Amino acid sequence: MPEINGAETKKSKLIANPNCTTAIALMALWPLHQLFGLKKVIMSTYQAASGAGQPGMDELTQGTQAYLNGEAVENNIFAHPLPFNVIPQIDKFQSNGYTKEEMKVTWETRKICGLPDDFPLSCTAVRIPTIRAHSESIVVETERPVDVAAARQALAQAPGVKLVDNTEQLEYPMPQTATGQYDVEVGRLRKSIVYGDYGLELFVCGDQLLRGAALNAVLVAEEMVTNGSLQAKKTA
Amino acid sequence: MPEINGAETKKSKLIANPNCTTAIALMALWPLHQLFGLKKVIMSTYQAASGAGQPGMDELTQGTQAYLNGEAVENNIFAHPLPFNVIPQIDKFQSNGYTKEEMKVTWETRKICGLPDDFPLSCTAVRIPTIRAHSESIVVETERPVDVAAARQALAQAPGVKLVDNTEQLEYPMPQTATGQYDVEVGRLRKSIVYGDYGLELFVCGDQLLRGAALNAVLVAEEMVTNGSLQAKKTA
Repeated sequence: MPEINGAETKKSKLIANPNCTTAIALMALWPLHQLFGLKKVIMSTYQAASGAGQPGMDELTQGTQAYLNGEAVENNIFAHPLPFNVIPQIDKFQSNGYTKEEMKVTWETRKICGLPDDFPLSCTAVRIPTIRAHSESIVVETERPVDVAAARQALAQAPGVKLVDNTEQLEYPMPQTATGQYDVEVGRLRKSIVYGDYGLELFVCGDQLLRGAALNAVLVAEEMVTNGSLQAKKTA
Repeated sequence: MPEINGAETKKSKLIANPNCTTAIALMALWPLHQLFGLKKVIMSTYQAASGAGQPGMDELTQGTQAYLNGEAVENNIFAHPLPFNVIPQIDKFQSNGYTKEEMKVTWETRKICGLPDDFPLSCTAVRIPTIRAHSESIVVETERPVDVAAARQALAQAPGVKLVDNTEQLEYPMPQTATGQYDVEVGRLRKSIVYGDYGLELFVCGDQLLRGAALNAVLVAEEMVTNGSLQAKKTA
């Protein structure tokens, strides 16, 4: 997203890597923002145990085996046992009823996309019993009328995105296919029943151990070295 | 919801039981509709294997054990292997890009709540690797300003609802606690960042083998016998 945030980062020496949930969503949302202009964003997440690192993944797989053996399931990493469960809490609750994870998506999306400080975006962040790769259900209202074919074309060409949107062949984003991939899968594109011509619904899935964390930091560093402030400093 | 749909059902001899996802959502949405008036509803679901019955539950648990053993995971019931995966498809795709499961939530909510035929409600229906009980992330825009305390009070008193909304104690709706319960758990109530004073966000979880299916049918029959058309016929 060099047009907005990139110009700012060129002035900085310390670059923050976004939250993984934000990074994955924005791979799809930025091309759509450029096409149609985002007006509102409503998101619900399906986040994997890997968000809590290797200990989280171990707690899920070991707990799942314990559950299948009919044994007690322990939880030290997650607030509740995760095997075959759903935990609608990631990070601490804030005074407004949202969790810090949910607010990070709101705060960071506004900042990265250069949107106003009160841009209406909300997220419900939910931990589910998957090992790796976060999925996200996203509904957007747009400034301009949507064209689903144009959205698909833009996403197919967007860097870091793999369009997986062939419902006839039952192809859509899933952790099973997104895990281990650098690209974020985007699919289930459809005109929104709620917002009519001015809205899109979509589903994304990305390996947050790659796109959501280390890979993103490496890409930011590479961008800076080749085009940005580090290069400028070296040649100054 | 006797005020609207109940009057209609009294004229009928054949009563349809709603789709489980719809039934669970409406336990929470009907009291909120009465309080604030629903204007828009956006929903994403976290649906258990039990939606496909015992064979679905067996495929999940047996497949999970196979996965943990490092063996191949078979899928006959679900479109893709469900263990540690997320499948953003339930039932067949329609020409508008939504699945039939998603459209049922739209169609049946409009009908049951007596809302207009074009009432803006959309759903993304997603299968996740839980055995039993469906969860749903719901965002509503309202006609009148919301009061979160009043919403909590109404839900605490609503029949068939258990308010589970104490974030300080990390209490919120989860399959682990909702499974085997007649009541639908409702929590994570908060004023919506997207809709400000005119919006609420919430999370619900209900055992769809009870509230979503047989129990609901029994309750409809009981209501009809004691208050409705069957009683009227008997005493006529």
